[in-house]
Amino acid sequence: MSESRRSPLPIPNVVIADEFWSPRRQVVRAKTLPHQQERLREGGPFAALRFEWRPDPDDDRERFPIFWESDVAKWIEAASFALASEADPALEAAVDEAIALLAGAQQEDGYLNAYFTAIKPEGRFTDLRDAHELYCAGHLIEAAVAHFEATGKTSLLDVMRRYADLIDREFGPGGSHEGGYDGHQEIELALVKLYRATGERRYLELSLRLTDARGTTPFFFDAEALERGTPGYWGGNGPIVRSDKRGREYNQSHAPVREQTEAVGHSVRAMYQYAAMADLALELGDEGLRAACERLWRDLVDTKLYVTGGLGADPSIEGFGPAFHLPDKDGYAETCAAIGLVFWAHRMMLLTGEATYVDVLERALYNGVLSGASADGTKYFYGNPLASDGTVERSDWFDCACCPPNLARLLTSLEHYVYAVGDDGIAVNLYVSGSARFELGGQRVSVAQSSAFPWDGAVSVEVETEAPLRFALRLRLPEWTTGDVAIEVDGAAADFEVERGYAVLDRTWRGGERVGLVLPMGPVAVRADARVGAAHGKVALQKGPIVHCVEEVDNEAPVPQLVIARGGEPAVEHREGLDRITVPGLVDEPAAGGLYRTGAAPVRPTEIRTVPYFAWANRGKGTMAVWVRESL
Amino acid sequence: MSESRRSPLPIPNVVIADEFWSPRRQVVRAKTLPHQQERLREGGPFAALRFEWRPDPDDDRERFPIFWESDVAKWIEAASFALASEADPALEAAVDEAIALLAGAQQEDGYLNAYFTAIKPEGRFTDLRDAHELYCAGHLIEAAVAHFEATGKTSLLDVMRRYADLIDREFGPGGSHEGGYDGHQEIELALVKLYRATGERRYLELSLRLTDARGTTPFFFDAEALERGTPGYWGGNGPIVRSDKRGREYNQSHAPVREQTEAVGHSVRAMYQYAAMADLALELGDEGLRAACERLWRDLVDTKLYVTGGLGADPSIEGFGPAFHLPDKDGYAETCAAIGLVFWAHRMMLLTGEATYVDVLERALYNGVLSGASADGTKYFYGNPLASDGTVERSDWFDCACCPPNLARLLTSLEHYVYAVGDDGIAVNLYVSGSARFELGGQRVSVAQSSAFPWDGAVSVEVETEAPLRFALRLRLPEWTTGDVAIEVDGAAADFEVERGYAVLDRTWRGGERVGLVLPMGPVAVRADARVGAAHGKVALQKGPIVHCVEEVDNEAPVPQLVIARGGEPAVEHREGLDRITVPGLVDEPAAGGLYRTGAAPVRPTEIRTVPYFAWANRGKGTMAVWVRESL
Repeated sequence: MSESRRSPLPIPNVVIADEFWSPRRQVVRAKTLPHQQERLREGGPFAALRFEWRPDPDDDRERFPIFWESDVAKWIEAASFALASEADPALEAAVDEAIALLAGAQQEDGYLNAYFTAIKPEGRFTDLRDAHELYCAGHLIEAAVAHFEATGKTSLLDVMRRYADLIDREFGPGGSHEGGYDGHQEIELALVKLYRATGERRYLELSLRLTDARGTTPFFFDAEALERGTPGYWGGNGPIVRSDKRGREYNQSHAPVREQTEAVGHSVRAMYQYAAMADLALELGDEGLRAACERLWRDLVDTKLYVTGGLGADPSIEGFGPAFHLPDKDGYAETCAAIGLVFWAHRMMLLTGEATYVDVLERALYNGVLSGASADGTKYFYGNPLASDGTVERSDWFDCACCPPNLARLLTSLEHYVYAVGDDGIAVNLYVSGSARFELGGQRVSVAQSSAFPWDGAVSVEVETEAPLRFALRLRLPEWTTGDVAIEVDGAAADFEVERGYAVLDRTWRGGERVGLVLPMGPVAVRADARVGAAHGKVALQKGPIVHCVEEVDNEAPVPQLVIARGGEPAVEHREGLDRITVPGLVDEPAAGGLYRTGAAPVRPTEIRTVPYFAWANRGKGTMAVWVRESL
Repeated sequence: MSESRRSPLPIPNVVIADEFWSPRRQVVRAKTLPHQQERLREGGPFAALRFEWRPDPDDDRERFPIFWESDVAKWIEAASFALASEADPALEAAVDEAIALLAGAQQEDGYLNAYFTAIKPEGRFTDLRDAHELYCAGHLIEAAVAHFEATGKTSLLDVMRRYADLIDREFGPGGSHEGGYDGHQEIELALVKLYRATGERRYLELSLRLTDARGTTPFFFDAEALERGTPGYWGGNGPIVRSDKRGREYNQSHAPVREQTEAVGHSVRAMYQYAAMADLALELGDEGLRAACERLWRDLVDTKLYVTGGLGADPSIEGFGPAFHLPDKDGYAETCAAIGLVFWAHRMMLLTGEATYVDVLERALYNGVLSGASADGTKYFYGNPLASDGTVERSDWFDCACCPPNLARLLTSLEHYVYAVGDDGIAVNLYVSGSARFELGGQRVSVAQSSAFPWDGAVSVEVETEAPLRFALRLRLPEWTTGDVAIEVDGAAADFEVERGYAVLDRTWRGGERVGLVLPMGPVAVRADARVGAAHGKVALQKGPIVHCVEEVDNEAPVPQLVIARGGEPAVEHREGLDRITVPGLVDEPAAGGLYRTGAAPVRPTEIRTVPYFAWANRGKGTMAVWVRESL
């Protein structure tokens, strides 16, 4: 077949030494991980694992203990990824301490969930829809695999295998919860990782079983609710059974996953489900799951994706609205959903060898994901709106703290996303300076990248081999390039084929070659499909993968009063580590004489200045917009 | 002084025979009043007055019994106005039946409120902030005055005088609720009417006392809440005392009314308060209240008024947002608030003789008020948004049914608003065909108007006198005129002064003169102040007082995809009783190849067609907008 299944490189094989990414990753190490560790220690999760925590019914912030294992897990996972790239004995000891707490909380039969052990033991596995038990288990399994791969220690892996074995028994054929699955997908993709780490195929089969059970009739969540006879964890006064379309779509249990055609419901749940489906399609060669993934992908990318790579426009469900419903100010675009899209897109690239998935991954990564944290890494957005009326700012933390540790684990595992390797050679997916070691045709091959990406599209790639070796070096040609891409090898223009979105240099590499690549990167004005109401008559400015926004602090009027002059030449200045685009524009002027008038709208010329979207909201509150009116 | 205080004409002095208004008023008589009567009979209010109703705690719709007297009152008032212009024995009998119920529900001491008699007697006058007791009393007083003026019967007036006397005792000096006032203003303006109907000055003084008590410290609502020790009627889990700025501003109790400078809080409450302040300013020559009214008016009209005359942009409080916060799709603009603005504006005109208040009254009346009911008068909007994503439609009724009867009582009392008379002569405020009888200088003078208003600005006014009489006939010059106004008397061009927004024909009238007036009425494109975000880069089309909107059903694409071509000539067609404006425009075309692209936005030419805003949502659901993008 013409396509190729690929693998990512293990973290130790990749060195990231990049002016853009390295400082951000260093912030995660130096600030985010210690900050999160402190929160786990002080905020309840560690106490809960010691069975010392009791809920305070008067404290609304204590509604979230059911997520605490996932907080611990994502922190362990992020720390493990960090340990995989650079040793840190203090961090490793802290991880071991957390793992000891988890091991201590594990029950005789393998069960591991503090809330449903110490607080509500009678509730164990009775509320799959709402209670996030398997979701937490999934994150712990991901943490166990990352910890094992980083340190070689099986302390957490052993714990989680025992728990996974229990889940396999209870949710497997003849088990007391046969046919069940979690209301928040996560364990499905985690079990694929556990299979890969252990070679135990029954974890893969359990993942497939959980995936394929979803949305079949009779509906599992109805049955468990009727059996339980009480509302779920969030129940409130609603009906015990949520059989309405919106209720079922919320957790993507409205139809068997293979039959799903539209991205609906809670967007993080959706991303984790689709990621697991892509994993299973790859591991099993399952064409039905692959076809479903491709359908869902098209629906998302063609109708429900923000230009920032954010997704999930409807705050009321933290999820998808209808097609083309992408409001800016009142949208949602949860950081975790953009991170989930990175996970899914990455797997789709591995499955298909298509660069188009990396285009979307890159769009999300550099925009809707990065915007989730402040420049200093200490404040966070849960939702990432594309416009602000001046009231939006990042928060220190969240009671439901899913996003900050998710961002941490993505940044500390960035190594996974830069390259891929397979029968079709080496794919350079992201332009991130540093180096990588591959095993190819029995040889060690290394590739070193250098660029000022994402600010400059000139990239140098040096290839080293032990001996001459023929392979294809695939350099991704981003969809945002604004002109012909030029490639040189050792200073001479190189011919190349374009295949599945990559420039393919298929040749015998002798070692020491220097490939020069120039990706023209704008700036350009981007327009949205006419069905996107929030972007009507508006443009967004973009340079390379970086989507810009206009912030009030840089401009002479509140952003809604600004109009970009059509055809005006944008200029770029790089200052304080960021590109800024300047374009000629107009300002609406407040009129004398009342709110409404029949004369021409008074305007005056101005310069409109941007910053990268990910960097907004670092200089106080003010109006902001990605989509800015354009004169017509 | 140069200004003049004026009076409206009593309903029997005015005959409305108008192609625009008469059918709408007939719908109120033939459909709305019987429909409302049915609701009162079947829906609980009449049963409550018989003390036969008991709440059903499982039925959420039964949260509104505290409003039922006001529903009964507004129906009696609307029916009484209808009886004043045309006898209807069956309707009069139905009114008498309702009044008998009210009389039967009145307690020995004069108290009249079914909920706080039969359901929660211990709560009487303990929850002024939330429980609407004086609000209901106010509406009943208005009904009593209207009924007395229409029929000469004192059956309800006597009942309400007894209740007003009780209120005067309890809320007056030394009374057990001295210093109190209602959370929903209404009784203040009603007491001025009661004073005018009875000549009893203590009702005027009670109105002034309630008005001036508002917002003084210590705050009455805090004191009553602390004394009560429980949340108010809507209490929920909130604090018992609502001392936050937003909580106080909601019912305009944040500051003494004379010191208030900005229109804030619940907009119907605000309008009723300001109307009472204007009444008191007029009756008492109170310059402090007048100055406060003028300040509040400027704040409203300059910063918080929709182009439709709607107001109260924030659905969460049914009230005002900050200055220039006038969202279209997500706005509110309650029908009752626009009706309240008509009340206030009318009183400001009576107080000052300025036509500018009638400009706003007319804007509200023909747009944001009329839109509150469907063309057939059987469905209603509570909120009147200026744009729809296709999901908005009128409802049959509301559990809190304030708007439909409010609209009914306004339409059946339209006579009050057409003319005013005072020392400065006769003012023609609204161009409504029909006739009116005045007493002027001891003579009977009659004025007959004829026009195809609001569709055509040519108006004929015939003046009849018993003998030659000098007086000023003041013809309002609307702010929307789009050119010079021509006035003829008996076919010859007439010179006229312009004073306070009126063309003044101050002459000796011999009787039989025919005044011809031509008011050029567009169509024109209206633009909003640059600080109104929802109107950025957009225009609204208006002809005369009628603000138009664009509905999907008349156009070839969803409204958000339409762009009006700047400088295009609008054309008007009158069809099925409505003007329609057609302007050249463009349609954004959905693009092939994904959501985002860098090429020019594909557009194609189209014709954009409007209907009057008040007439929208009568032909099924679809997108709609008043503010439509304009090419720049």
